[in-house]
Amino acid sequence: MMDKKKITPRKLSGFMELPPEKQIIFDEMKDKIRKVFDRNCFMPLDTPVLEYAEILLAKNNGEIDKEIYHFKKGDTEIAMRYDFTVPLARFVAMNSETLTYPFKRYQIGKNYRGEKAQRGRFREFYQCDADIIGNEKLPIVADAESINTFYQCYDALKLNVVIHISNRNILFGFIEELGYQENASEVLTILDKLDKIKVENAIFELNKLGIKNESAQQLINLTNKKGSFDEVLGEIKNFSTADTYIKGINEITELSSYLQAYKIPKDKYVLDIGVIRGHNYYTGTIFESFLLEHPEFGALGGGGRYDNLAQYYTDKNLPGVGMSIGFTKLFDLLDYNGLLQDTPRYPADVIIIPMGDTINNCLNLSTYLREQNIKAEVNYDDRSFKAKLKDANRKEVPYVIIVGENEVATGKYTLKNMRNSEQFSLTKEECINKIKAE
Amino acid sequence: MMDKKKITPRKLSGFMELPPEKQIIFDEMKDKIRKVFDRNCFMPLDTPVLEYAEILLAKNNGEIDKEIYHFKKGDTEIAMRYDFTVPLARFVAMNSETLTYPFKRYQIGKNYRGEKAQRGRFREFYQCDADIIGNEKLPIVADAESINTFYQCYDALKLNVVIHISNRNILFGFIEELGYQENASEVLTILDKLDKIKVENAIFELNKLGIKNESAQQLINLTNKKGSFDEVLGEIKNFSTADTYIKGINEITELSSYLQAYKIPKDKYVLDIGVIRGHNYYTGTIFESFLLEHPEFGALGGGGRYDNLAQYYTDKNLPGVGMSIGFTKLFDLLDYNGLLQDTPRYPADVIIIPMGDTINNCLNLSTYLREQNIKAEVNYDDRSFKAKLKDANRKEVPYVIIVGENEVATGKYTLKNMRNSEQFSLTKEECINKIKAE
Repeated sequence: MMDKKKITPRKLSGFMELPPEKQIIFDEMKDKIRKVFDRNCFMPLDTPVLEYAEILLAKNNGEIDKEIYHFKKGDTEIAMRYDFTVPLARFVAMNSETLTYPFKRYQIGKNYRGEKAQRGRFREFYQCDADIIGNEKLPIVADAESINTFYQCYDALKLNVVIHISNRNILFGFIEELGYQENASEVLTILDKLDKIKVENAIFELNKLGIKNESAQQLINLTNKKGSFDEVLGEIKNFSTADTYIKGINEITELSSYLQAYKIPKDKYVLDIGVIRGHNYYTGTIFESFLLEHPEFGALGGGGRYDNLAQYYTDKNLPGVGMSIGFTKLFDLLDYNGLLQDTPRYPADVIIIPMGDTINNCLNLSTYLREQNIKAEVNYDDRSFKAKLKDANRKEVPYVIIVGENEVATGKYTLKNMRNSEQFSLTKEECINKIKAE
Repeated sequence: MMDKKKITPRKLSGFMELPPEKQIIFDEMKDKIRKVFDRNCFMPLDTPVLEYAEILLAKNNGEIDKEIYHFKKGDTEIAMRYDFTVPLARFVAMNSETLTYPFKRYQIGKNYRGEKAQRGRFREFYQCDADIIGNEKLPIVADAESINTFYQCYDALKLNVVIHISNRNILFGFIEELGYQENASEVLTILDKLDKIKVENAIFELNKLGIKNESAQQLINLTNKKGSFDEVLGEIKNFSTADTYIKGINEITELSSYLQAYKIPKDKYVLDIGVIRGHNYYTGTIFESFLLEHPEFGALGGGGRYDNLAQYYTDKNLPGVGMSIGFTKLFDLLDYNGLLQDTPRYPADVIIIPMGDTINNCLNLSTYLREQNIKAEVNYDDRSFKAKLKDANRKEVPYVIIVGENEVATGKYTLKNMRNSEQFSLTKEECINKIKAE
């Protein structure tokens, strides 16, 4: 009756779909980040995946970005969100009168970009964002709070990360003093490529913008400064007397004192004037994270200060600072390079195996164990006892409880430690103690 | 410079967006369901929101359902998932050779249906699904496991729910014996309306299908049977001798013994032959949940047995049983009717307030508290001390720690219990004990 042509089961490329054994690790890592956000008193926000296209396209002057998934439903132009910042801006603009400031929110969820699919790039990806929004003003200590939260995320994941920090005003101020502020954005784009292109080429490109060799060399020299805050600040403090430059130096000095007060270990962050970050909306503090042992992975996440979150939707001046971790990309990198801290696993703490006609006793026992927060499963399939034991072994569960008719009669169950094959004859309560001791 | 026309911030209708104080409750409830799935050893699966349209539309013969969000990206017809069952079928069909059976997976996430927006109906909604898939066969005990997991979800949410259970074969068998099997689906549709339409009208509609008055009355009589399993089974056991009917009675009898073995309280479930559920793919056990005190809310969730999960994608025979909770709808119902167990709240356990120039000490203290898993926040805005205390009061946080210069000098902080205004002068360690004792 149902003998129709089958449709080949396939999924879209660029969309991660982990085997469940690995999804367990993914979810646990994501939970750890969420706990950090909770502990730091950020509040959860869960904006829709779909928005009016005009909202998402506001900053592009309404122009449709090829990467954005958008479509029409009835008469409505709809788009899928590609980050959390734009929906946050929309939310804050809509609710600006009822929120209390600083408004600290986090959002963990999926975003969408129809980029060219390639290794490590995803069209659907989790991001973990935390932002602090001020009303008209927001002190520099908020920037430190953002970086501290960022640090704690990696610490919770046991990842050895170094956070590279800078302040936009430093390079801006220097460019200003050199008289090239009109080309500031192009200059930054060139400086941002310094880790990829040769110094001569960078100078050549700067020359093309009208920047003379000496100035170009000074710019590159400043961009290359990297090290402890004290060290680098000592070196560059007096490089320029431009107001913007001084502002940058002062902000970074103040930030440094807060980072110390938070007790972030000194080897976890550096002042790195070469941090530029593409987004034009950053206006002060900027930061990026790199794995100490694998800088070649590139920035795993980052963030910074922006002057005005919701300028496209409201006249209200809402400065903010935020951090973001590209979680799908991070997980994929760690997985691909064999750096996950955990191994994929079956979720059961114990599998209960009936021997003979004891299924009801097994179900009963499973309820008892679960009430004690033990992940218990009954193997009720119709294969042989031996096959079930083998199955439990293959699943690498730590314990098995065997429930035969004898066990039911005496109230003493056979608990088997699957790692060392030790067997015990124990009451329900004793089973629980043994399993929990693990 | 940025003085462009503002875009009115608005969100699409039919999309839930909670204030963060309420989102905290939403997330906590969702977590409780996830913990139940974990404890019962279901494994997480996180399929993409987007799928090839042909996959999602397979069961409609490729016809496009108006409710489904679909669009073209390049040459690819894409659709947003509207449930988790179809992506599960696609996933299992793709990976059928590597999975171990029974394959138990859960998925908690958002689904999309462009339905007419109205109170309590959402176009983006969370569902919490758990399914058990067998390879070629799956014993009835799996149905009991599904219902037991379903029960535990509501128990974890402290919701007083009654699960109404039936088996499709009972009504099917009865209709068969009456000789109306060709109209079975239309008959069920009429019987499904019995709680909304008058008996006379139901009989009239059944008459139109050619069912005589006496048979119609018998059908309605059977459909109205509801009560404890023993009671109802005793009454209806011998209503029919059709094979399908006997099969239904046997399956429900076996199911009943497992539900008892699981120790689900007897007042939490009934045998209700009137449970029909719209989905045509159910083939055996079916169940739905209702709030005991608010049956008028309708079914909060449900599930059942299906013969063949992935028939559109593979020849492999994969019977399954699953449960699903429409979580966004459930939350909205509880919220709208004032039935949430928690009140919206600010997430902090304690707010640290500097008095004088002690901000660095406050940051330092906040790190110390967070390391002890206390949700600590420093109020660093530039308002007066009094305003900050008022703010903490309005946020209803349980504790405030005041850090003045005197506190820093002596190492004794002022901990204020905001509920009774008691104040203590305590060391950091003592503060932690006091806060944790809460």
